[in-house]
Amino acid sequence: MENLREALQAAIAAGEAVRGTTSPNPPVGAAILDREGRLVGTGATEPAGGPHAEVMALREAGDKAEGGTAVVTLEPCNHTGRTGPCSQALVDAGIEFVYYCHPDPDRNAEGGAAHLRQQGVGVERIDRDVDTLRPWLAAVRNNRPHVTLKFAQTLDGFTAALDGSSQWITGDLARRHVHRDRGRRDAIIVGTGTAIADDPSLTARDGQMELPDQPRRVVIGGRSLTGHARNLHRLGFEQYRGIPEALWQLWDTGARDVLVEGGAHLASGFVESGMVDAIQAYIAPTLLGQGRSVLSEALGLSLADAATFQLQNITRLGDDVLLELTRKD
Amino acid sequence: MENLREALQAAIAAGEAVRGTTSPNPPVGAAILDREGRLVGTGATEPAGGPHAEVMALREAGDKAEGGTAVVTLEPCNHTGRTGPCSQALVDAGIEFVYYCHPDPDRNAEGGAAHLRQQGVGVERIDRDVDTLRPWLAAVRNNRPHVTLKFAQTLDGFTAALDGSSQWITGDLARRHVHRDRGRRDAIIVGTGTAIADDPSLTARDGQMELPDQPRRVVIGGRSLTGHARNLHRLGFEQYRGIPEALWQLWDTGARDVLVEGGAHLASGFVESGMVDAIQAYIAPTLLGQGRSVLSEALGLSLADAATFQLQNITRLGDDVLLELTRKD
Repeated sequence: MENLREALQAAIAAGEAVRGTTSPNPPVGAAILDREGRLVGTGATEPAGGPHAEVMALREAGDKAEGGTAVVTLEPCNHTGRTGPCSQALVDAGIEFVYYCHPDPDRNAEGGAAHLRQQGVGVERIDRDVDTLRPWLAAVRNNRPHVTLKFAQTLDGFTAALDGSSQWITGDLARRHVHRDRGRRDAIIVGTGTAIADDPSLTARDGQMELPDQPRRVVIGGRSLTGHARNLHRLGFEQYRGIPEALWQLWDTGARDVLVEGGAHLASGFVESGMVDAIQAYIAPTLLGQGRSVLSEALGLSLADAATFQLQNITRLGDDVLLELTRKD
Repeated sequence: MENLREALQAAIAAGEAVRGTTSPNPPVGAAILDREGRLVGTGATEPAGGPHAEVMALREAGDKAEGGTAVVTLEPCNHTGRTGPCSQALVDAGIEFVYYCHPDPDRNAEGGAAHLRQQGVGVERIDRDVDTLRPWLAAVRNNRPHVTLKFAQTLDGFTAALDGSSQWITGDLARRHVHRDRGRRDAIIVGTGTAIADDPSLTARDGQMELPDQPRRVVIGGRSLTGHARNLHRLGFEQYRGIPEALWQLWDTGARDVLVEGGAHLASGFVESGMVDAIQAYIAPTLLGQGRSVLSEALGLSLADAATFQLQNITRLGDDVLLELTRKD
């Protein structure tokens, strides 16, 4: 059991490490234990068209996989797409037992567990939610990208002061967290107003250095950016007129996990459409009294009209706090 | 050392248990170890006029205190007021060593450690901040009650919806936490607007039952409450015209730790006066879009005008979060 726990952690860590690089495939992690229970291989999903996590882990394990155990964060696929089915690869390598966390919700890929059992491999599900897979699972369930609304605000809920100043509301650790998080998303979305007012780069950076995995830069809104948004013009971006069109096109071109960074008008549109799956609220230990709010519109007149989410994680980032919430099921 | 740690924890717990009942005296806790290092007595400050923590702990220890060690959260007093000096009581009981956390900032009481040393008792300070004593220590330093600003809000910073509805923004656990906390304060303060609009009781309750220690009910503002605020009239309250007068009178009549519950106009007055020592922000996992804010006024036009605090504690209360902040030194 101790070895199994170690293998599960290795599989989860391997999957987390490739987040943002695998869409439209899920960021899966896998680990192989040999016959004696020693960890002999780990692997994760390669970029689309490349091998899946199981195959990468089996490659590392080599002959040692024979008679061994595989631990995978997602049910092995049974689908021959650009790569062969992972369930058969596990059988061919002589794996005798497979543990997996989430069942595969993809209708084209499902049946991996059944196929393994038919081939005489033991299969068991581990009841463990893998955070890394949450956006991809929701995206496949909803047939649109998983949407996270992100904002940084003062303790009393202002994303900018009355004069519009908003830079550095939160501190250094929070900003670094934002950039690491951007690198794990498929796309960063802002409204045309923000694109024009802030001239953002929408890149994932560590200081001045760009991180290796950059999200797609997306602007939603009807206003023309000609003569504005120099950074976006320099770096390249996509523009869509409205939220439904944007999500549809993003889904169709492989995006599964997108981050909406504002402004207030776009954020209101996403909340009102009911398509916000998760919230990241970075909260600074400051009071402003008045300023610009996260949303541009009231969701209703009464407290009963509030949109309610579920608190998932609380992370202290220096003097700031990150609250992560998810859609209330 | 293990025994000392146990005694320190017992002393801290004893002090915390009497918070809200000791003003103008501090909620101190004490523990006595006998010659062999066994815990033989604990005690805490009795209500004003009663014995201090050391005396209560010595009473419980009886003869076993002789040759023993005392652990106290605050330096023993050397002052003969309504009770004799605690430092002499420790000497008389035959205590051979005294550990304390905070030095006594009260000019009338200081010198306890020096007196103990003169009498041949070993004295050492433990470098440990005792949360329970924080408000009292700040009050004595500032010559006014320690002020905590408390509010409950949506994630996007609204304490009420546009129609004024504000009941049950946060959930059951958060509300219970508020009531327990009220019972540990010397006074609860609201503005006249809130007193008139909400008809609050400002009592510390557990469900419908009133907790044993009730804070003073205080209203600040010039408007007359005649014909309004039936609950306050029934239960009794004090009214002061402005913030400075209220704090002066509260200090003079023994209050050391007060809680300001709003509304926005009074909260703005306190923040602008620079007299907010601590903040308790209860944050619900909801978005409202628009509504009433914590403060009624902007602290300035720019982000640089924000009031900055220091994040102390993060407490999850069901689906809500309590952020506790303190004045930035």
